[in-house]
Amino acid sequence: MTSTDRAGTAEEGGGAAALLDRTRHVVNPQLRSTVESLPGSLRRVAMYHFGWVHADGSPATGQAGKAIRPALVLAAAGALGADPAAAVRGAAAVELAHNFTLLHDDIVDEDATRRNRPTAWTVFGMPDALVAGDAMLALALRVLADDPHPASAAASARLAACVVELCAGQQADCAFEGRGPHDVSLDECLAMAEAKTGALLGASCALGALYAGAGEEEVAAMDAFGREAGLAFQLIDDLIGIWGDPEHTGKPAGADLAAHKKSLPVVAALTSGTPAGAELARLYAQPVLDEKDVWLAADAVERAGGRDWAQAEAGDRMARALHQLSRAVPDPGAAGDLLSLAEFVTRRTY
Amino acid sequence: MTSTDRAGTAEEGGGAAALLDRTRHVVNPQLRSTVESLPGSLRRVAMYHFGWVHADGSPATGQAGKAIRPALVLAAAGALGADPAAAVRGAAAVELAHNFTLLHDDIVDEDATRRNRPTAWTVFGMPDALVAGDAMLALALRVLADDPHPASAAASARLAACVVELCAGQQADCAFEGRGPHDVSLDECLAMAEAKTGALLGASCALGALYAGAGEEEVAAMDAFGREAGLAFQLIDDLIGIWGDPEHTGKPAGADLAAHKKSLPVVAALTSGTPAGAELARLYAQPVLDEKDVWLAADAVERAGGRDWAQAEAGDRMARALHQLSRAVPDPGAAGDLLSLAEFVTRRTY
Repeated sequence: MTSTDRAGTAEEGGGAAALLDRTRHVVNPQLRSTVESLPGSLRRVAMYHFGWVHADGSPATGQAGKAIRPALVLAAAGALGADPAAAVRGAAAVELAHNFTLLHDDIVDEDATRRNRPTAWTVFGMPDALVAGDAMLALALRVLADDPHPASAAASARLAACVVELCAGQQADCAFEGRGPHDVSLDECLAMAEAKTGALLGASCALGALYAGAGEEEVAAMDAFGREAGLAFQLIDDLIGIWGDPEHTGKPAGADLAAHKKSLPVVAALTSGTPAGAELARLYAQPVLDEKDVWLAADAVERAGGRDWAQAEAGDRMARALHQLSRAVPDPGAAGDLLSLAEFVTRRTY
Repeated sequence: MTSTDRAGTAEEGGGAAALLDRTRHVVNPQLRSTVESLPGSLRRVAMYHFGWVHADGSPATGQAGKAIRPALVLAAAGALGADPAAAVRGAAAVELAHNFTLLHDDIVDEDATRRNRPTAWTVFGMPDALVAGDAMLALALRVLADDPHPASAAASARLAACVVELCAGQQADCAFEGRGPHDVSLDECLAMAEAKTGALLGASCALGALYAGAGEEEVAAMDAFGREAGLAFQLIDDLIGIWGDPEHTGKPAGADLAAHKKSLPVVAALTSGTPAGAELARLYAQPVLDEKDVWLAADAVERAGGRDWAQAEAGDRMARALHQLSRAVPDPGAAGDLLSLAEFVTRRTY
């Protein structure tokens, strides 16, 4: 069975949604009790961010995100023969680390909306959101440190190293925003995306492998699988940031363009050497892009080949991910859940 | 030998400065190599914050702070019979955690000056300072997670729990600033100071005990010693924030009053029920305090008894600290370094 065959099977199976549901069912009690252990105001900010309460503290039925990272932890542990439930603290930890980055990224990027709701810093103020993010990172590492499972020490080390990489990615992302349209290369941009997105998806898979007692090589292959799938995910996410349906994304159409974001398809277009790329650079030189400019910019990215490139690159990254997965989990049957998840993140409708 | 005798001896010995020097000598190589492992821009922000480089990246001869927390780790380990050098990663970890809080607190409090230099966020911008702080917290936990010492897992758990407490303290501190002059009780203020300052000094001592292989009770007594000494330290620090010599503090005189800070002596004055307390409340109701107002406010704190109360409370907390220390380390000879440090932090000239 080739990688492509397996991807096909996973797609037909369409089990990712059920898998994510199951993950939330298993992980949410741990996640929620961990967050609820926070004192007073920190708890309220964190619970609002997760969608569990409204700004006034009353219960909400919102959802804490898709739980892709926790699902990767459980699926990786399961693929290597462990009981996924044994890795539940690892799953909660990566979700906490992910949400720590969201809280801080929203501050740094001055984003006002996430998951169709006002971001935490706009509701509670920057200081409280910043400190709640700090607490969430500390919780992520505490939930592992308190875990009696023999893998927890290695998992802590891996997650802490991953958070350093996430920070480097976020810092690079901010630095790129301040540079001119031709001053960011596509390679720099891919390296930033790997640090900002790939690293945590890789760490999620690596944590699952560690909880399954895997050896160094399997852990490394799992990490590489997650990283490559993460890059594919980021490429798709960047496409959604330009052409996504606001109904699905919870953000206005073309939000990334309006924010002058140097996302992967944009940088591909800017560095394409095409007339459409030059057009895009002229649009990005304007301090403010109105609705029509955003539409023109999206069209320029497409004509400069940025959209096609991103789609092809996402496919290529997925192929690499599947190769790494076959190294980590030679039995295709055992890899089914991980395949479903990888397919899911790269085939989201937009 | 009574606690008072011992305190007297430590003071005469005056060994704290030498102890802090020795600590920096032992811990700085670990601290520096850990910080230098950060990628690019994060490294520069962190190194600037520690005083190792100027804003342009050229080497500086500044000092990374007094290293009180690392000294507590090493002294606690030594007091319980361990080789202090074995706890060097624990010492580096608490210093990283401390500096993470400084980086973020400066952002949240909009402080422009620290250690006689512009704060990192004023030099590098809020986003880079925020993310560098995040990375420093991750490093603190990574330096423990990577430590092969058998105590490192328990140390990680303790430090992660402590950081949650630090966050709660910082959040409470911010919340108090927004409340009216009579809306913060002295008890709330003491609880906040315990979380914001006592917790990390307590955790430093507890980490030292863990590295010495101490039992639960000794670790708890060491934690309590550090917490009480930490409260004494905070009380003195608050006095310095009002009456400190700018030459020593690196901050303008009365900086805390100008910032309407509800520090412990201020809250003691505000809740004193005295005419001077009411005067202080009127001054604090002004949106801006000029130089003369700051002088009047300091005088009002003093006349309302805030200064005397803080000094007496600091003495009381020190007595409790010494009691806890005698529980953790029954041999007074072995406790000498910890005593020197506790005396040092509560007898700083201002």
